[in-house]
Amino acid sequence: MGTYYSRMANASVLTPQAVDFPRWYQDVINKAELADNGPVRGTMVIRPYGYGIWERMQLELDARIKKAGAENAYFPLFIPESYLAKEAEHVEGFAPELAVVTHGGGKQLEEPIVVRPTSETIINEYFSKWVQSYRDLPLLINQWANVVRWEKRPRVFLRTTEFLWQEGHTAHATFEQARDYAAMILRDVYERFMVDILAISVVPGRKPPKERFAGAINTLTLEAMMGDGKALQLGTSHELGQNFAKAFDTGFLTEAGDRAHVWQTSWGSTTRMVGGLIMVHGDDHGLRVPPRIASTQLVVMAVKDDEAVLTKVREIGRELMDAGVRVVVDDKVHTPFGRRAVDWELKGVPLRLDVGPRDLANGTGVLVRRIRGEKYPIALDSLAATIPLLLEEDQALLLSQSKEYRESRTVDVDSVEQAVEAAATGWARIPWAKIDAVGEAFLAENGVTIRCLLAPDGSLAESDDTPDSVAIVARAY
Amino acid sequence: MGTYYSRMANASVLTPQAVDFPRWYQDVINKAELADNGPVRGTMVIRPYGYGIWERMQLELDARIKKAGAENAYFPLFIPESYLAKEAEHVEGFAPELAVVTHGGGKQLEEPIVVRPTSETIINEYFSKWVQSYRDLPLLINQWANVVRWEKRPRVFLRTTEFLWQEGHTAHATFEQARDYAAMILRDVYERFMVDILAISVVPGRKPPKERFAGAINTLTLEAMMGDGKALQLGTSHELGQNFAKAFDTGFLTEAGDRAHVWQTSWGSTTRMVGGLIMVHGDDHGLRVPPRIASTQLVVMAVKDDEAVLTKVREIGRELMDAGVRVVVDDKVHTPFGRRAVDWELKGVPLRLDVGPRDLANGTGVLVRRIRGEKYPIALDSLAATIPLLLEEDQALLLSQSKEYRESRTVDVDSVEQAVEAAATGWARIPWAKIDAVGEAFLAENGVTIRCLLAPDGSLAESDDTPDSVAIVARAY
Repeated sequence: MGTYYSRMANASVLTPQAVDFPRWYQDVINKAELADNGPVRGTMVIRPYGYGIWERMQLELDARIKKAGAENAYFPLFIPESYLAKEAEHVEGFAPELAVVTHGGGKQLEEPIVVRPTSETIINEYFSKWVQSYRDLPLLINQWANVVRWEKRPRVFLRTTEFLWQEGHTAHATFEQARDYAAMILRDVYERFMVDILAISVVPGRKPPKERFAGAINTLTLEAMMGDGKALQLGTSHELGQNFAKAFDTGFLTEAGDRAHVWQTSWGSTTRMVGGLIMVHGDDHGLRVPPRIASTQLVVMAVKDDEAVLTKVREIGRELMDAGVRVVVDDKVHTPFGRRAVDWELKGVPLRLDVGPRDLANGTGVLVRRIRGEKYPIALDSLAATIPLLLEEDQALLLSQSKEYRESRTVDVDSVEQAVEAAATGWARIPWAKIDAVGEAFLAENGVTIRCLLAPDGSLAESDDTPDSVAIVARAY
Repeated sequence: MGTYYSRMANASVLTPQAVDFPRWYQDVINKAELADNGPVRGTMVIRPYGYGIWERMQLELDARIKKAGAENAYFPLFIPESYLAKEAEHVEGFAPELAVVTHGGGKQLEEPIVVRPTSETIINEYFSKWVQSYRDLPLLINQWANVVRWEKRPRVFLRTTEFLWQEGHTAHATFEQARDYAAMILRDVYERFMVDILAISVVPGRKPPKERFAGAINTLTLEAMMGDGKALQLGTSHELGQNFAKAFDTGFLTEAGDRAHVWQTSWGSTTRMVGGLIMVHGDDHGLRVPPRIASTQLVVMAVKDDEAVLTKVREIGRELMDAGVRVVVDDKVHTPFGRRAVDWELKGVPLRLDVGPRDLANGTGVLVRRIRGEKYPIALDSLAATIPLLLEEDQALLLSQSKEYRESRTVDVDSVEQAVEAAATGWARIPWAKIDAVGEAFLAENGVTIRCLLAPDGSLAESDDTPDSVAIVARAY
């Protein structure tokens, strides 16, 4: 057993993380063929390997969302401009980011149309028709869609003018039911997915008032630490109170026979998670994809153009597929071995099994464990039993690395000056009471933001912020 | 065993098909809660029950598309206006239908942006970068996306300004390979899906030159007959020749070392299929959803608020779910039985099993077979074995009804006058040679179009039209 990397071939491929993390990120995106920049500034082309990751994210999240009782639907891309204006904070927040359609079918439109930046307004227009009585509540809707927000500083996957996401929208009879549902989505859907499937250790918290979603009374967030110590918001869940319900008159007849406005939530997770996945788990050799989200978990590679070898790799492929492993057989023996090896390494496929004529004689192959950086011979007759266990081992390793890394780079501080210093390499935990208006301005000047607020014991505070709340501050994407 | 319909309750719900088919269609859309009109003219809101049908269509089609070797990717919604202009026929065809974004991020844009009506242009921009040598071919890409085409006469699902679809785009080394792939997608992916899953008998044919996709050298189509005898195009597959390849210089190094342009295909199927499904299988009582595409295949209904009944229906629900049946347990006993029954009938759930206290004593329930209009007692102890067979029986019945209906309403004619007469109630088959320019104008004046051309024996003609080709003409959606 030994550490293995095809160092030579890799040396010139990626900028090392320590040299320039943003360039490393862009290099990985390009070399692993995850995405390209689109022709309209800030848009992106998601290539098959990148889209495969997103597809599995969708699959896993969709199942959890349905389990949470929400049903999928689809609302139009085009929203009349007047809808946005109905909720004052909402329009103020989104107006600077809108794309506006002024011409359709060869004519100038009477009313300009907005390309949805999010769908609270258009969805409330329909909720107000669909909801009549308390019997129609809760109304739990989700949609998978593209949205557009004009980005000044676009970065592939992280901030793009158009991105893909799911947006959940619910209506409840009481404040408490809406509050609990918003928290449940954050914890039981998003956090469990990120921890269990993406192997990313996240911190659940509340956004400070200034950072709330435009139109929300409370915004919950999941924050993750990237490989350079910066923070990335990976998912959010909002309590909308009755703001949109009042703007669109989304009301219902209560059990007591009164008329009341509904209480609402909205929550979203986006293709940004693909960027987070790269920046949490990637290393100088490329991506490292957690086995549970990997569209390819193992590649069986024929080392040479040899009939017995080709027969064997295909046989192994079938055997492992039957065992539930997502396998690709790489029998492209006319492409040099080194080039193929580097490519799988860059793409971060968790396991690679090399089979050559000599291995075959021994009844073994060489297993390359991308996530651990290990390489050793393995018997070919027990793969179906072994491989699933190794994949789970590696999944667990990535999660523990993510947790340890964040914890090792998070420090408790007592002043905004110390917080700025800590934010150079990681996160700072600071008493919320220590950040006044001047302190917040000082943080902002230094490119540091308040990521979220926690209860004094570090847990998600369900009620309003108390003076003894704790703030997580960091530089962020 | 006897014919069963809750006639009284239904009488006022839907306009009968024979009275006004388009109104019946709109009634079904509303009453079965499939979709609503969107606020921007021609757009639609797809409600959960309608979206559930689309989701299963996606699931089935996506698996077949992947089996055909294509990988999913995602290209931007926004296309620079200049891209469309690169292919002359393409821009001419799509210009009148475009939605144009002129403002973004609060500013007027330097170059107007088009909301994609289809993606041949933007995809070729990237294919031209990704394809270098014959080793990169074939390049087989699919995307699930929304597209926008300004509709003058919108109708929910059938013609909407925004619709959802999958669009496949491929590049090949030779004309023959592209031609064969386009035909394979039509037959092995689309036709098999429509016949085997949607239970719709379709006719594969070639579009006459005037009806081709803008920019294609050949368009293949699948035409289905709706419940009023009109035709609906359910899917198309195009040979693009080298038109886009030349416009975007999508070239490659051949095995012989020459430079050549690729040969391309594109193919699409849309949410229009949901409309087709309704119009092929629906009756005066509502939808009839083929079991293989039904998100709910059977509903177990508690007739009364009775503890033993409620326990039993939940037990049956679990048992059938374990047997692979998609079940919903309707235990909303506080809603009147008749209202629930009419609702399930409207929604076209294939099977309903009513369980009341008296049934329970007999160890039976009452099975209501929506597709056959039959109702009879059934023993509760053998459901797991019986139900899957009944579902397959009903699936087969719908397909044979669809085929018989089309055949019974298709007649062979010898003149355009006879064709117009036949088109009042169905389709006409007429020798292609009998339709000259004057004849085509005559058909058009009478609202009749040439749906497709077939080989003399009625099969899909793979080569160019010959004088003995046969045309299918009909009124169409």
